[in-house]
Amino acid sequence: MKKLINNPTYVVEEMLDGFLKAHSNYIRVLPENDRALVTSRTTREGKVGVLIGGGSGHEPGFLGYVGDGMADGVAVGNIFASPPPAPILEVTKAIDKGAGVVYLYGNYAGDVMNFGMAAELAEMEGIKVEMVLGSDDVASAPKEEKHRRRGIAGELFVFKTAGAAADLGYSLEEVARIARKTNDHTRSMGVGLTPCSLPQTGKPSFEIGDDEMEIGLGHHGEPGIRKAKLQQADVVTDELVAAILEDIPLNEGEEVAVLVNGLGSTPRMELYIMFRRAEQILREKGIKIYRSYVGDYITSLEMGGCSITITKLDNELKTLLDHPADCPMFVQK
Amino acid sequence: MKKLINNPTYVVEEMLDGFLKAHSNYIRVLPENDRALVTSRTTREGKVGVLIGGGSGHEPGFLGYVGDGMADGVAVGNIFASPPPAPILEVTKAIDKGAGVVYLYGNYAGDVMNFGMAAELAEMEGIKVEMVLGSDDVASAPKEEKHRRRGIAGELFVFKTAGAAADLGYSLEEVARIARKTNDHTRSMGVGLTPCSLPQTGKPSFEIGDDEMEIGLGHHGEPGIRKAKLQQADVVTDELVAAILEDIPLNEGEEVAVLVNGLGSTPRMELYIMFRRAEQILREKGIKIYRSYVGDYITSLEMGGCSITITKLDNELKTLLDHPADCPMFVQK
Repeated sequence: MKKLINNPTYVVEEMLDGFLKAHSNYIRVLPENDRALVTSRTTREGKVGVLIGGGSGHEPGFLGYVGDGMADGVAVGNIFASPPPAPILEVTKAIDKGAGVVYLYGNYAGDVMNFGMAAELAEMEGIKVEMVLGSDDVASAPKEEKHRRRGIAGELFVFKTAGAAADLGYSLEEVARIARKTNDHTRSMGVGLTPCSLPQTGKPSFEIGDDEMEIGLGHHGEPGIRKAKLQQADVVTDELVAAILEDIPLNEGEEVAVLVNGLGSTPRMELYIMFRRAEQILREKGIKIYRSYVGDYITSLEMGGCSITITKLDNELKTLLDHPADCPMFVQK
Repeated sequence: MKKLINNPTYVVEEMLDGFLKAHSNYIRVLPENDRALVTSRTTREGKVGVLIGGGSGHEPGFLGYVGDGMADGVAVGNIFASPPPAPILEVTKAIDKGAGVVYLYGNYAGDVMNFGMAAELAEMEGIKVEMVLGSDDVASAPKEEKHRRRGIAGELFVFKTAGAAADLGYSLEEVARIARKTNDHTRSMGVGLTPCSLPQTGKPSFEIGDDEMEIGLGHHGEPGIRKAKLQQADVVTDELVAAILEDIPLNEGEEVAVLVNGLGSTPRMELYIMFRRAEQILREKGIKIYRSYVGDYITSLEMGGCSITITKLDNELKTLLDHPADCPMFVQK
């Protein structure tokens, strides 16, 4: 697959170099570790630090979400690989302002191990840490085992509400409660059409026929529920939304946030066509969409396809979702 | 090519339906014409109306740029096709608040004809219209014939500064002057790696070998300057930036805005790698980047590749570029 890169070994370094140059008003790298980035603005004393992170290749996730009202720092891994404990620890130390730090990351074995180790090291240095794992992908484990599920695009809403709570001065326990509640209220399911390829191998991340789609595909090309013949957008949307609503029943009159997230190479036009159908289904059920997000928020390099996320809202989450944010790749007034 | 669509004949209608549902707080459709969209907020009496438009398939261009500080309305064409005069005229009538309307669009034969006809019709109804054509693509005609050049991603900066000027209460002549000055100060050049395909034909928009790139490619697959073997990102960036700087010489100490614009399926990672090199070249020449934009701003469905845009700034343009904006797909604090 064609790529506009130089040496495949240094794609993350070169991306970070460009990113830091482009957005120096937002973000800076710590001298201690070149994969440890923190906000350029001053984190207030007594504010809970919000730390996000994960593998590269998901841009705008995760580095694009460091800024006012979202995260205070990010630990950056190699492509589709967890960051090691060292940058997580350095970010933790830099953004702790006496109120502790919350780690928000997806439920993947490598991340669980590395963020867990970093938390232990931070606590040995006297920094209180709470960890909240994103686990919104309904396709990745049965309902009874939500804790085993992968985190995919729904993490955006966890970053948004927890970031807002921290910005509003909530305590560490309260910020963690908001993050857990948001994750508990969030369900996603994806569909894959075309694979991406890692710069170092050039090999497709999964195999799929020219007329096929993969329902329930993960963000790194993890297998979904089934392969099927590619259907019309409405049929695909029906299946994704039905799986979500079966998992988190919503009653008439309830309010939700909806995210249609492109995986990298899917035109906005198609994402809006998917959103259109999701809105129809929800409207027919008397469920009100309070906020909509349509675009590339957490991608998988140039993968083709998208995911749909629905988050059940209450007044607390609505207020936090409405809170302004100002990040390199996410600005909300 | 795989697409998440329903009937290919109705992709634009269905996209608009989804877009209007997702962003009803920003934008609404006029009852007179379903391709005529205007801001949901009230355009102030005495404010110059800013009208943008062009073919679909370039999302976020153009409908994503209707909102505070940018455009007041947009006329939406079919995929890669100019909107006809009727929706342009309806938008004009809706957003004219007594101070006239400026049309901002790319220099393409169909657009020139249709926007020109709409302007004549509007003037027959007593509405003053100024037209400013984007013509930033250095690959599309020689330097001496800038008026013949295509408009590509550099139009973003024209929308931004002219939209800010209108928001600040500038007169029609002044808004048009700002738009022309921005276009005069703006140069872009693109590179194409992979084609897109129109939903109705499914055929690739241009032919290219598996190891080739097309230097100077247009936003609808128009041929560029030459096909060549795909090179490393730095080599490609060197060629694009050199062509731009030869066209608009910049002296040490001058300031610019830089846009690295993805065409649809190029990962953010690669765009930042391209930006990194562009920044190096400019820094070595003592040219200061005042503002950076890296992402998908004006796309070509799922086309692979990107363009680089450089706009020479002065204090007037810097102030207008810094002015806040709040649109469905472009928010700047």
